[in-house]
Amino acid sequence: MKPEEIRFDDSTGLVPVVVQHHSTGEILMLAYANLEAVKRTVETGFAHFWSRSRRKLWMKGEESGNVMKVKEIRVDCDGDALLYLVDPAGPACHTGQKTCFHNSLNV
Amino acid sequence: MKPEEIRFDDSTGLVPVVVQHHSTGEILMLAYANLEAVKRTVETGFAHFWSRSRRKLWMKGEESGNVMKVKEIRVDCDGDALLYLVDPAGPACHTGQKTCFHNSLNV
Repeated sequence: MKPEEIRFDDSTGLVPVVVQHHSTGEILMLAYANLEAVKRTVETGFAHFWSRSRRKLWMKGEESGNVMKVKEIRVDCDGDALLYLVDPAGPACHTGQKTCFHNSLNV
Repeated sequence: MKPEEIRFDDSTGLVPVVVQHHSTGEILMLAYANLEAVKRTVETGFAHFWSRSRRKLWMKGEESGNVMKVKEIRVDCDGDALLYLVDPAGPACHTGQKTCFHNSLNV
């Protein structure tokens, strides 16, 4: 599948991106991408996303230095979700934790 | 965090749910949940979602038999994405593949 064939959401122009450590398999974060973010990721080899809160394109780690080298991009069966397999330079989470999914749901 | 504290999207009432095999670490699918789907997952121990296309609650495998036993639910740092760690009874994908993320992006 080509980047132009990804089924971005009709209203937001975004798809969710699951970010997984390429060697440990740990899920590091979930973020969103538009077509430009996917193209920049492909061009540069580093994970780019669309920030919904700041309404701008961002490269993960552009401020913290914790960039993510993207080894592979996968697309799901209906083309509306992506998986970035990455080699991260540091913690994924702004809290300093390795992964953003460090809390369990208490039930 | 409690299910009621999850930050469901203001307009859709949903959060994305990453589904990962609890032992192999493979990402199986990405789907969406509302509060009811999360509660049903907790109550039954089987993965429930909200189908955006059919506009209804569904239990994964309710027709195919490929249910997913949920071992743990994690929440990301800002509370707007979930991770179900599952033990699947069969393939996750409607195509019969083990995972929905079986296609690479060709660049």
